[in-house]
Amino acid sequence: MRTLALIACTFVGAATASGLPAQEASGGQPNVVNYVRYEHQGRVSYGVLQGERIREIDGDLLGTHSDTDRWVALDSVKLLQVTPARKIIAVGLNYQSHLGQRESATYPGLFAKYPTSLVGSGADIVRPPDSKNLHYEGEMVLVIGKTCHQVTRVLAMACVFGITAGNDVSERDWQANDLQWFRAKASDTFGPVGPTIATGLDPDDVQVETRVNGEVRQHARTSNLIFDVPTIVSYVSRYVTLEPGDLIFTGTPGSTKAMNPGDVVEVEVEGVGVLRNKVVQGG
Amino acid sequence: MRTLALIACTFVGAATASGLPAQEASGGQPNVVNYVRYEHQGRVSYGVLQGERIREIDGDLLGTHSDTDRWVALDSVKLLQVTPARKIIAVGLNYQSHLGQRESATYPGLFAKYPTSLVGSGADIVRPPDSKNLHYEGEMVLVIGKTCHQVTRVLAMACVFGITAGNDVSERDWQANDLQWFRAKASDTFGPVGPTIATGLDPDDVQVETRVNGEVRQHARTSNLIFDVPTIVSYVSRYVTLEPGDLIFTGTPGSTKAMNPGDVVEVEVEGVGVLRNKVVQGG
Repeated sequence: MRTLALIACTFVGAATASGLPAQEASGGQPNVVNYVRYEHQGRVSYGVLQGERIREIDGDLLGTHSDTDRWVALDSVKLLQVTPARKIIAVGLNYQSHLGQRESATYPGLFAKYPTSLVGSGADIVRPPDSKNLHYEGEMVLVIGKTCHQVTRVLAMACVFGITAGNDVSERDWQANDLQWFRAKASDTFGPVGPTIATGLDPDDVQVETRVNGEVRQHARTSNLIFDVPTIVSYVSRYVTLEPGDLIFTGTPGSTKAMNPGDVVEVEVEGVGVLRNKVVQGG
Repeated sequence: MRTLALIACTFVGAATASGLPAQEASGGQPNVVNYVRYEHQGRVSYGVLQGERIREIDGDLLGTHSDTDRWVALDSVKLLQVTPARKIIAVGLNYQSHLGQRESATYPGLFAKYPTSLVGSGADIVRPPDSKNLHYEGEMVLVIGKTCHQVTRVLAMACVFGITAGNDVSERDWQANDLQWFRAKASDTFGPVGPTIATGLDPDDVQVETRVNGEVRQHARTSNLIFDVPTIVSYVSRYVTLEPGDLIFTGTPGSTKAMNPGDVVEVEVEGVGVLRNKVVQGG
């Protein structure tokens, strides 16, 4: 946990030193719960974050589960990607500030990332040897809680368990030149997600901010999404059955720039905490 | 199993009535083994196909496993998709006969399908309510047997456990108009795979044939792939870590046409057997 503690010194924002949300950081919303997935003494668990401690839960977070009396210190665990997702779905061009002068489509533009793209907060983003133009994309990410097929817009929110923060890491040269956005979006470590899953928030009105080495690069509220959360979930479920643990990246605001090895990228989603990853050069 | 038995009557080709390869159908290659994944009395197993019977295996097909003395009749089981893949990777434009006058790229063009796209032989391909131009694409599919990251072309074959047949079902209107090939390629049931995993064949020289209602529509040998199997596996593994059970669709030859509800589509890969699926209209 040395890396996390070290990077925490550079953090500036509305959360605790660890980058995880203080209970009062969720805008005074008393029903917000923050879940973390972590490894402790070789075992993977979910727990409820309470200050600097985690209360382990028994059972299936997205099904039946209960609190235990087992507590571990936050600084004694390794945080993991928030779910072992089978499917990671992403929405492209979903803020007018990212589209610029381009016109919005009349339905969401979707693409895929892979389970092997996912890493947790504190893990490295590995820049592939032949990558020259690797960008961050800070986003709010939906955590699916139920199996959903052809769900209506009105009922879509029942499929969403909570939200997290994600970095839709994108290789712009590959994205421009390849047949499809595949290695540009789905390469290993191109999908950091975390640090927590927050429940009890309104996903259509939270703040998303991206910082590189402490400097703010992206800043928006999800109320500016072109396709809102119910529309996204309903649309995806017309074609692809959503399952518990699946993740949906909802799109990135504003403009982005290249990241370089050594850069520390933070994506903070209000109430979720700070997703913090360092870029390293792959061999 | 009534559906399979019924459709079997329309089958014309070098395999048994069930669509599964007779031992002599593998071109006299004595080391070919055909594995099936199936459900029998509510339990999912792998087994070795021997004529019209299946010999159940214990353990992990892609790891340590052994034959048992338990046999079941082929006509008493439901065949399943050949692996519970986490990742399904597909190569586009990989036969000159499919490219037509277009020039080939200098590296493989890749895209993704989802675990929820997969179905087994005998299952229905469900045409989504708003689909008007749904095409078959018969292909040889690689079954990955080992975790592989940045594997060289020379060592790539060690990652491949065997091959199967796949139908890379594609909605051409969506493929032409959407931001990315997402719902066009990754919708539910758009990835039939099966009926067996064959080991002991040379994946760079097997025959692939697609038939619709018994009429041959596509016919090629994988020796005509623009990017051969070692190149595909090596290239993918530079960006995306391959894991046991992952599937790689290797591309489709020739031209394709729309399928209609009621059509029975067969993809036969030499030594693998016949992947047979009926198209039905989704509601």
